[in-house]
Amino acid sequence: MNQASQSDIAKRLQRSLYDDIPLVHALALQVRIATPLRVVFSAPLAPNINDKGCAFGGSLASLLTLACWSLLRVHTWELDWPADIYVHTSKLLYTAPIWSDFEVVASLSPEALEQFSHDFASKGRAAALPHADAMTVDAQGEPISALRLDARFVAMRPADSV
Amino acid sequence: MNQASQSDIAKRLQRSLYDDIPLVHALALQVRIATPLRVVFSAPLAPNINDKGCAFGGSLASLLTLACWSLLRVHTWELDWPADIYVHTSKLLYTAPIWSDFEVVASLSPEALEQFSHDFASKGRAAALPHADAMTVDAQGEPISALRLDARFVAMRPADSV
Repeated sequence: MNQASQSDIAKRLQRSLYDDIPLVHALALQVRIATPLRVVFSAPLAPNINDKGCAFGGSLASLLTLACWSLLRVHTWELDWPADIYVHTSKLLYTAPIWSDFEVVASLSPEALEQFSHDFASKGRAAALPHADAMTVDAQGEPISALRLDARFVAMRPADSV
Repeated sequence: MNQASQSDIAKRLQRSLYDDIPLVHALALQVRIATPLRVVFSAPLAPNINDKGCAFGGSLASLLTLACWSLLRVHTWELDWPADIYVHTSKLLYTAPIWSDFEVVASLSPEALEQFSHDFASKGRAAALPHADAMTVDAQGEPISALRLDARFVAMRPADSV
């Protein structure tokens, strides 16, 4: 896919997130990259702080869940497949506080995406196991993961699209 | 503790959540019960919907994380212990969609609370493993858990309180 249409999809994703999910306005995320293998959001710290002044765990959990969900949203858009996509399980490990504006990065392997596509095409239902990180920097300014999320998502054809 | 002071603590918790964590305004939660063993929030569906019209996973993860955090917040308030309380890990299992206003319920066992208190008093640092559920009703109108969260929280004396 060329650069122009990638940026169109990022814009479409951002618009649909803001239109469909009220909490996204409070999270104030910006979609930077939106492909089925990699989704990147940026988010400002200020609207996402906790009582200690660093990033609130609930904001982070929301952003990482949305970034993982977006991988499958973008993929099913590209294939023009109507799909309801749900998070089923997630596991989060918080390892460092975040004290500034930050990015979240979600990924899915090409093999997992191919399996997902095969299952969805043949059964109208498929699962995938994406993961995501919220990024910060260490004392030396090197990027490190502050929070890792491993999730299982399920997608299915909406009842009214058969 | 008598009824009056329990309701004072619920009010204090609600005020501090709204004052300290901007995302709480978007979640629109109400604190119903606030004790160290049990915290109950109610939340309206409308500001917490997703693209499918049911409760957004990120809103739910935020509410359950906050409810668990609040168990230890209320406990350390009651003992007048300054404490920074962080979520360290969480595991979420989403089992049913939520289509109406809902409650979340967080719990900690008396034994776990006692161990937490003992460790915090002696070491200035302690961990606890609370859990929480987001409640909905099944087809027969019976209350069921729509989402279960199991978490590990860490509390420590703030650096400036020693």
